[in-house]
Amino acid sequence: MAKRSLTLSKVYTLLEPGPVVLVTTAHKTRINIMTLSWHCMMEFEPPLVGFVLSNRNDSFELLKASRECVINIPTVALAKQVVAVGNSHGRKLDKFAAFGLTAKPAALVKAPLIDECYANLECKVVDTRLVNQYNFFVLEVIKGWIDPSQKNPRTLHHRGKGMFMVAGETIKLPSRMK
Amino acid sequence: MAKRSLTLSKVYTLLEPGPVVLVTTAHKTRINIMTLSWHCMMEFEPPLVGFVLSNRNDSFELLKASRECVINIPTVALAKQVVAVGNSHGRKLDKFAAFGLTAKPAALVKAPLIDECYANLECKVVDTRLVNQYNFFVLEVIKGWIDPSQKNPRTLHHRGKGMFMVAGETIKLPSRMK
Repeated sequence: MAKRSLTLSKVYTLLEPGPVVLVTTAHKTRINIMTLSWHCMMEFEPPLVGFVLSNRNDSFELLKASRECVINIPTVALAKQVVAVGNSHGRKLDKFAAFGLTAKPAALVKAPLIDECYANLECKVVDTRLVNQYNFFVLEVIKGWIDPSQKNPRTLHHRGKGMFMVAGETIKLPSRMK
Repeated sequence: MAKRSLTLSKVYTLLEPGPVVLVTTAHKTRINIMTLSWHCMMEFEPPLVGFVLSNRNDSFELLKASRECVINIPTVALAKQVVAVGNSHGRKLDKFAAFGLTAKPAALVKAPLIDECYANLECKVVDTRLVNQYNFFVLEVIKGWIDPSQKNPRTLHHRGKGMFMVAGETIKLPSRMK
């Protein structure tokens, strides 16, 4: 998918609506993908993101060891893959091959970009104070990529137990909010 | 609005999709409302929620002093009020009166419920370790209320600068994810 570099000050416009994301991690010879929805913007610029990545997932160890990841944002076109990744365990499974996803090299981190996702955010871990108690990592987005043809991406928003709200229309209201 | 008690294990199904919320706070004689989108589930049950509430807002001092708040979830029917709250400052303004919102007493906290919101989550602050650096509070939801007639609430999801994605259709996929 043809992408351009994303201005870092615009990262919040992608994550603030609350889409399901696919997080890729890599350490030594291991690579993994997981589905995640418990994320939150924490600063506009440099963009900081917090997320909960459960220690019951293989990705937790890869993230702790590498202190890097990519947050990939899928649209409804990848709904089946999102669920398949969420339902599977990665230690022995190549999820890219199993689910027909394409790994592309990132610019600044070892974890790969998922090419089929309309946006990719390369991140490094910057704060682990809440990891032991809540599995909550604070990350800085250091590089972003976006498919500029996606003006109103039909992102997925998890309502629990396989129910996903699909992004609807966008309305514009007179606002002074950033 | 007629509401019933919300089972606490279902809180995540309301917040995980990433809606804009209205946070109410109260301390001594002061009451405030603010618009917020930077929130994140952190545990299923008891439900924990993290959010960033900027120290540039009056609500920050009320939350710090009272250690309580209510997270109210509006639908698109309240879009104008959501923006009006986001654009205003509360120290001298009664936002309930100014924007035609109805304050109802909560069960377990002093901050009021916004009656027009389809769901209300009464919260207490449980962790402030990341407040100084990021304005990030960890809250426990101790009581919830919901309008049971809203099966597919048309929630608002902020894309920045007054652009709001409105919740679209819900799809169901075979998933073992919670």
